[in-house]
Amino acid sequence: MSCVFCAIVAGEAPAITIFEDDDCLAILDIRPFTRGHTLVIPKVHTVDLTDTPVETLGRMTAIGQRIAKAARLSGLHADGNNIAINDGKAAFQTVFHIHLHVVPRRDGDKLSFAKGMLVRRDGDREETGRLLREALAHVDAAEKD
Amino acid sequence: MSCVFCAIVAGEAPAITIFEDDDCLAILDIRPFTRGHTLVIPKVHTVDLTDTPVETLGRMTAIGQRIAKAARLSGLHADGNNIAINDGKAAFQTVFHIHLHVVPRRDGDKLSFAKGMLVRRDGDREETGRLLREALAHVDAAEKD
Ligand SMILES: [Zn+2]
Ligand SMILES: [Zn+2]
Repeated sequence: MSCVFCAIVAGEAPAITIFEDDDCLAILDIRPFTRGHTLVIPKVHTVDLTDTPVETLGRMTAIGQRIAKAARLSGLHADGNNIAINDGKAAFQTVFHIHLHVVPRRDGDKLSFAKGMLVRRDGDREETGRLLREALAHVDAAEKD
Repeated sequence: MSCVFCAIVAGEAPAITIFEDDDCLAILDIRPFTRGHTLVIPKVHTVDLTDTPVETLGRMTAIGQRIAKAARLSGLHADGNNIAINDGKAAFQTVFHIHLHVVPRRDGDKLSFAKGMLVRRDGDREETGRLLREALAHVDAAEKD
């Protein structure tokens, strides 16, 4: 299988999962800009904004919003998040299976964000995944109230 | 009125409009990263991802996708787009009325993109607006077929 995200969706490549439903998977980026950098990936392969159904995009964004809320509540103590879709190679897209980035940010991390674009590693991915999943459960519980 | 985007929505501050419907307004960024840099703004004031209804976010994203498609078709000849929401001051949010960025990109513009983050001006905003509106009409017509 040539698409790494399709391989992850099929369970044929490893990933640390933050969230999964029928349509989408959210996993930690293997080369995070910041700790908790998550990718929301639709299970059905499409390339970019030109071929992705608007309903799929809406689903990805809704999940991204919940993960952004979770990052703030989580043990990662995010003060904000960058949400991004890189649509096309000209826009720095590197995996040609559409995905939405959620990049948790903290006040005053500007330097480490710039550094993170070079370093891009997380010393404890398993713990990062656990913290986000835990907070996401709280977000979901709050929204059901 | 202290919120510049609310003032634009109310028609009390100027802007170059790309798109408008009952819920949202899309305008050219006054300090564009690249030519055609557009902001999708909900008409009802909310601050960030923590207080914006998921339905509003879905509407913003759907419009952003159409503008991204339009930028590719347009006389701006975009090869791709960056879509972004800066959720919170820690994530470089500067206007605290939520907005979605659509940043048209061209192959090989990496240097001018980096420069654009410093320079951020467009020599012919009126023409840029015209090119995007024209292409958006083509996207909308194609989707109605
Ligand atoms: Zn794929
Ligand atoms: Zn406002």
